[in-house]
Amino acid sequence: MTPKPPYLGAAYYPEDWPLEQIDEDIRLMKEAGVNIARVGEFAWSRMEPEEGKFDFGWLRLAVNKLSEADIAVIMCTPTCTPPVWLTERYPEVLFMHTNGTRAKHGARRHACPTSRIYRMHCERIVTKLAEEFGHDERVIGWQIDNEFHSLSPARRPCVCPECVKKFQEMMRERFGTIEKLNEAWGTGLWSQTYQSFEQLPTPDPETWHHPSLLAAWQEFYSAAYVDFAKHQADILHKLASQPVGTDMMAFTGVHYGRMHEFLDVVMFNHYHTMENLWQVGMWFDLCRTIKNRPFWNTETQTCWNGSVTANGYKEPGFCRANSWLPIAMGAEANLYWLWRQHWSGQEIMHGSVISSCGRPLHIFGEVQETAKGFDAAAVFLNKTKPTKTGLAMHFSHLAAWIFEHQPIVRGFRYSTYLNEKAYRPMLKAQLRPDVILPEANLYDYRVIFSPFLPALDEDNLREKIKSWVEAGGTWIVGPLSDIRTVHAANFTHAPFGSLEEWAGIRCRFSVPGDPRNFKIRWLDGRVST
Amino acid sequence: MTPKPPYLGAAYYPEDWPLEQIDEDIRLMKEAGVNIARVGEFAWSRMEPEEGKFDFGWLRLAVNKLSEADIAVIMCTPTCTPPVWLTERYPEVLFMHTNGTRAKHGARRHACPTSRIYRMHCERIVTKLAEEFGHDERVIGWQIDNEFHSLSPARRPCVCPECVKKFQEMMRERFGTIEKLNEAWGTGLWSQTYQSFEQLPTPDPETWHHPSLLAAWQEFYSAAYVDFAKHQADILHKLASQPVGTDMMAFTGVHYGRMHEFLDVVMFNHYHTMENLWQVGMWFDLCRTIKNRPFWNTETQTCWNGSVTANGYKEPGFCRANSWLPIAMGAEANLYWLWRQHWSGQEIMHGSVISSCGRPLHIFGEVQETAKGFDAAAVFLNKTKPTKTGLAMHFSHLAAWIFEHQPIVRGFRYSTYLNEKAYRPMLKAQLRPDVILPEANLYDYRVIFSPFLPALDEDNLREKIKSWVEAGGTWIVGPLSDIRTVHAANFTHAPFGSLEEWAGIRCRFSVPGDPRNFKIRWLDGRVST
Amino acid sequence: MTPKPPYLGAAYYPEDWPLEQIDEDIRLMKEAGVNIARVGEFAWSRMEPEEGKFDFGWLRLAVNKLSEADIAVIMCTPTCTPPVWLTERYPEVLFMHTNGTRAKHGARRHACPTSRIYRMHCERIVTKLAEEFGHDERVIGWQIDNEFHSLSPARRPCVCPECVKKFQEMMRERFGTIEKLNEAWGTGLWSQTYQSFEQLPTPDPETWHHPSLLAAWQEFYSAAYVDFAKHQADILHKLASQPVGTDMMAFTGVHYGRMHEFLDVVMFNHYHTMENLWQVGMWFDLCRTIKNRPFWNTETQTCWNGSVTANGYKEPGFCRANSWLPIAMGAEANLYWLWRQHWSGQEIMHGSVISSCGRPLHIFGEVQETAKGFDAAAVFLNKTKPTKTGLAMHFSHLAAWIFEHQPIVRGFRYSTYLNEKAYRPMLKAQLRPDVILPEANLYDYRVIFSPFLPALDEDNLREKIKSWVEAGGTWIVGPLSDIRTVHAANFTHAPFGSLEEWAGIRCRFSVPGDPRNFKIRWLDGRVST
Repeated sequence: MTPKPPYLGAAYYPEDWPLEQIDEDIRLMKEAGVNIARVGEFAWSRMEPEEGKFDFGWLRLAVNKLSEADIAVIMCTPTCTPPVWLTERYPEVLFMHTNGTRAKHGARRHACPTSRIYRMHCERIVTKLAEEFGHDERVIGWQIDNEFHSLSPARRPCVCPECVKKFQEMMRERFGTIEKLNEAWGTGLWSQTYQSFEQLPTPDPETWHHPSLLAAWQEFYSAAYVDFAKHQADILHKLASQPVGTDMMAFTGVHYGRMHEFLDVVMFNHYHTMENLWQVGMWFDLCRTIKNRPFWNTETQTCWNGSVTANGYKEPGFCRANSWLPIAMGAEANLYWLWRQHWSGQEIMHGSVISSCGRPLHIFGEVQETAKGFDAAAVFLNKTKPTKTGLAMHFSHLAAWIFEHQPIVRGFRYSTYLNEKAYRPMLKAQLRPDVILPEANLYDYRVIFSPFLPALDEDNLREKIKSWVEAGGTWIVGPLSDIRTVHAANFTHAPFGSLEEWAGIRCRFSVPGDPRNFKIRWLDGRVST
Repeated sequence: MTPKPPYLGAAYYPEDWPLEQIDEDIRLMKEAGVNIARVGEFAWSRMEPEEGKFDFGWLRLAVNKLSEADIAVIMCTPTCTPPVWLTERYPEVLFMHTNGTRAKHGARRHACPTSRIYRMHCERIVTKLAEEFGHDERVIGWQIDNEFHSLSPARRPCVCPECVKKFQEMMRERFGTIEKLNEAWGTGLWSQTYQSFEQLPTPDPETWHHPSLLAAWQEFYSAAYVDFAKHQADILHKLASQPVGTDMMAFTGVHYGRMHEFLDVVMFNHYHTMENLWQVGMWFDLCRTIKNRPFWNTETQTCWNGSVTANGYKEPGFCRANSWLPIAMGAEANLYWLWRQHWSGQEIMHGSVISSCGRPLHIFGEVQETAKGFDAAAVFLNKTKPTKTGLAMHFSHLAAWIFEHQPIVRGFRYSTYLNEKAYRPMLKAQLRPDVILPEANLYDYRVIFSPFLPALDEDNLREKIKSWVEAGGTWIVGPLSDIRTVHAANFTHAPFGSLEEWAGIRCRFSVPGDPRNFKIRWLDGRVST
Repeated sequence: MTPKPPYLGAAYYPEDWPLEQIDEDIRLMKEAGVNIARVGEFAWSRMEPEEGKFDFGWLRLAVNKLSEADIAVIMCTPTCTPPVWLTERYPEVLFMHTNGTRAKHGARRHACPTSRIYRMHCERIVTKLAEEFGHDERVIGWQIDNEFHSLSPARRPCVCPECVKKFQEMMRERFGTIEKLNEAWGTGLWSQTYQSFEQLPTPDPETWHHPSLLAAWQEFYSAAYVDFAKHQADILHKLASQPVGTDMMAFTGVHYGRMHEFLDVVMFNHYHTMENLWQVGMWFDLCRTIKNRPFWNTETQTCWNGSVTANGYKEPGFCRANSWLPIAMGAEANLYWLWRQHWSGQEIMHGSVISSCGRPLHIFGEVQETAKGFDAAAVFLNKTKPTKTGLAMHFSHLAAWIFEHQPIVRGFRYSTYLNEKAYRPMLKAQLRPDVILPEANLYDYRVIFSPFLPALDEDNLREKIKSWVEAGGTWIVGPLSDIRTVHAANFTHAPFGSLEEWAGIRCRFSVPGDPRNFKIRWLDGRVST
């Protein structure tokens, strides 16, 4: 019997354990009451131990045994962690750092998404995997790679020649001529004017770069990951019948909208702590709106986080609350990371359901209780869909990229401020918004709030908002909205793109200054802070 | 009618705006009451869009229109920001970092002052610019490049082969033989002894270097910028009739004295905040003494500083006070940075006189009031010269370089301590000192204070001070004075070079220790802290 | 008359001063009452000014004059500081940084211990030096190099091709086949599995490495220094009759046990301050147990530490107490660093006995008093040996290396925690333990405390402890003990290797969590914190 939602489960790494242990793991899974396991992530060297030689026997065994125990499977492509024969033979698949050296073997998320060699090898392993499990009814979904993200350009992404070329090509496609790029970015200052796209440099931590270049590079890097994922999604859609997704994170580096244009289900990983669990609500409210189907909370901790230290200990009760929260907000799956604690490696101290010696952790009872609860609520949940309240708040990756490189006010960080200053007050006022991307259909809502949305021309929002307001929508806008072009520059006709015109007011001057409290004196003499 | 001092104005970047906007800018300038504009800085790619092809039409138009409006012009050489055709064709003009990579295009102050290729291209653009405006009476002065500075050797300067060679040559010129360098620096320890000048390394952040090497490298880098500026000054003095300067900063990396041996007017940029505005006094008191003519305060903010964030908000009244301060202390010009806020780029958030959409900022009224005040006081000011009070305090770049690499006491920073511990107490006691370089004529003063002056042999000060004291001068010396050779080493005959001999006292021992308070017990039993 | 212990003296650098000054230095040494000087350290360029040309005349003169004054000599090999002809002609002797650049000339501890070229040159100078002074009875001991240490792998050590190869060879010797390494480290996760030893990477700060790799690299670097020292020790043991040692520090990077397998006397340098002097006790209690002869405290400060700043000022009385402490804990020598303050260079501000101009520092009286005390106590001390109390605490380098790369709990640092949480409470309880390495003979003790000892299989401790307990020993173990294999991985059969079996208890689960206080509720209802 194939399990039905809501799913409760965990990430499972049979590749790291003796195969004969699978039975004991499954016995404990049944004792815990879980009904789903996520497998295959990172296991490339086990699936393809030599270039072109494949071994799925161990994985087939695991899937079979899980299925026999009525545990559904999410299958992952293992492309986040290239095997050593690949990194050794083709060192150009590894990130190039700004100092010219390459990342070393033995990490994860350190291979260049742009590398054609890397893509070619990814294509082969994904194809083989899809051929193996693409029509297996015990596999209920596919996860592509793992946690694409792109921290600030000074650090993570690759600056190899292929990335540089791809970035330049992307700019050529966007602007057509280099003159248009110069005009859009405003390179007239400091003799920055480019004469060809080939002259565009990659960000380097030692150089004081133009913020439009930096925002464009960040957009490029998001696009590079989206394109990398699409390459695999296309294969899976051709060879497999299950829904396909990729597990995203509570970061702004990779565009949720672009990524899900070709994906079927939104997957989300989060490791919020007891102290900041409230923040995850904004992300759940976003995940729910992207695809017209319940999202999957593919990873969360049971009791503490950890790499080589354990941290973020959670008090009793947290595990249960944290497991229910996504379900309450529109998910149909909650998976822990991880089932059995690693017995070595970079994440040896991360909390789990059972320890590396196979003993249930102190939260095992909470897991069992949650499993029973999911079971009891299943019929109700599966017949229920979240309703729209008519209220939405905008969330924009472009905003994050612009503010990343020009925070305008010291200490301003987009997603933190959006969460704390805009989303949380709504929660406290008992309002339940959808969190929507600029591409979203506005007519689903009667009230839309657009704070910290600098570039209103993103996704034609300027025209769309105008029409929607004219059709009766109520728009609450600002602060820091409609103040930049999509290329991260100021408007020169007015401080705002359209706000003055639309509101019939005129801004005499603005005072960004330091973070400090200014008082407002109203016409009637009252003073507000 | 050419404007007369005192000058009030701003930096103006017509290259970054449509030419048809100049009229509106000038209209607002007249409304503000300013009478000077500083132009050309950074506009190399506009002046020379292709190698060897020049276009000064736009700049001539701006100068003409400003002149017609009775606004004087300071013309700047644009060499701080090489165009992309230069950095692409000759990548060796860009800074080499210690990891072997080069700076990227699109920043400023990132070209190597030593590079012969770079010098050659600078020579050409400066020559053309001088030919164009060198005898234009509407141009009242020249600014070479912009804000030469050289932060600690681990960071900013270039370590390219040309710099290394030049540094070694400078050492050869100074010492003649490598044995003399070894003797002067004390390389006998740790087998550091060099056998030839070619073996001298450049500072590298990963290596624990000799402090005499580090101080010498810093001196070299100051000399590199001085030499770079002199190259341009020689051209301008040949082809132009106006006074020539370069805008210095409140940093100690480039030698004010060496730099002004061949320049005509001291230019100074400062961005002190409300909280630390008092510190700028020391620098003004220095600027006033270097050349026998009023200095120009070429840059200061109107209301807040900023690059990609705005910071250092100033309360009402600051703009006016900050504009008058240099005039009160010996300047004849005060220019804001900048006239019209940038509409994009690395400094998009910096405060200005009018916004990027052409609206006056909240301080516009203060600018107008200041302009009226300058006008009203003009006759008085132009007939007045600052008088010398007979009191001076020494300021030494060599001191800064020695202390940079051997602070002696934890937390000691030369220019901060000099300002806080020596200059400020004099201000509070209503004393008005000149701040003088070691090369200054001592006979202008009756009392001289030399705190934190480790190397008394700088500029023959040892002999000069002795003669001057014997002729009746009163010298107040220390702490931390006369304790090092000019090569940053200890004396070995006594803890001080001459102080014991001159004062007829003997130091039993000294206790530098941590920053902590020691008490002094006098012979009569009293205790001081 | 050759001096007898206890020795009181200082490091002396005649190479940095005019030879005619030796007499005055010796006059002051006699006035201070010291009877030993440590010479030769760092003086390679003076001993071998050109490749293959040796000059020991100046050193012979110094030794002669010291001996004539009844001052004993410790002779040091100068290999910590290669001369410039060596670093210039063979740049591969210098550390390679992870960014691919090499360290620069003019520092110390910056030459690669693995480099064969470097070893060859070290062999030559050590041989010559040993031939010169190996049977000189005025020389009472040899110090090899200076302060071997190896900070965390992201920083100090060399990653040159020779080091990489040597590391891979060490792993091959340890594991035999790459499969065994994969099994031991647990490389099955993240496709880290290696196919050959040649694929093992060196640690790079930009890569998220496996903690077993990092611990192994640290062990390799300790072994590299041990091997480097052994090379010299073998030469000295062949050519010289005096005892040989190397001055170690209060760091865990280089293995005290492996290092002293072939050395004759433990030498120890420490610079603890007034505030943390208590910490040095743990190290003295370790130094005492390693060799069956009194150790030498080869370096400590007189009054303050310093490189280019002075810091850690000590109050009156500290010098005396600090000088006696090692003697009280089993040393027979205490030497200050340094006799005469350097007159230049990287350590110009370090405290000394006399200043660089030859004047006694304020602690001179304390030195004299200490010298008199040593003299008065000499007969008693030389007839006395420290007694064993029967109590010992384990100290493990492998523990330090494992915890360095997996601290388990945030903020955990091995040697700090061992000192503060384990050693100090014993001191406060008036207990006097030996601090012993895992290789130590357990039967010298009745009670042994093994806190923070993760890998009980180090040096066969598991079997040894079991037998010793069975023979009546009392073992106090934990926290964080017996929780890892020697390869830094978890056990998979149980949370502890043997503790459950031996104690007859079973651990249900453990909660490492953040540093926070958990309370314990006992069966009788009492609660402890």
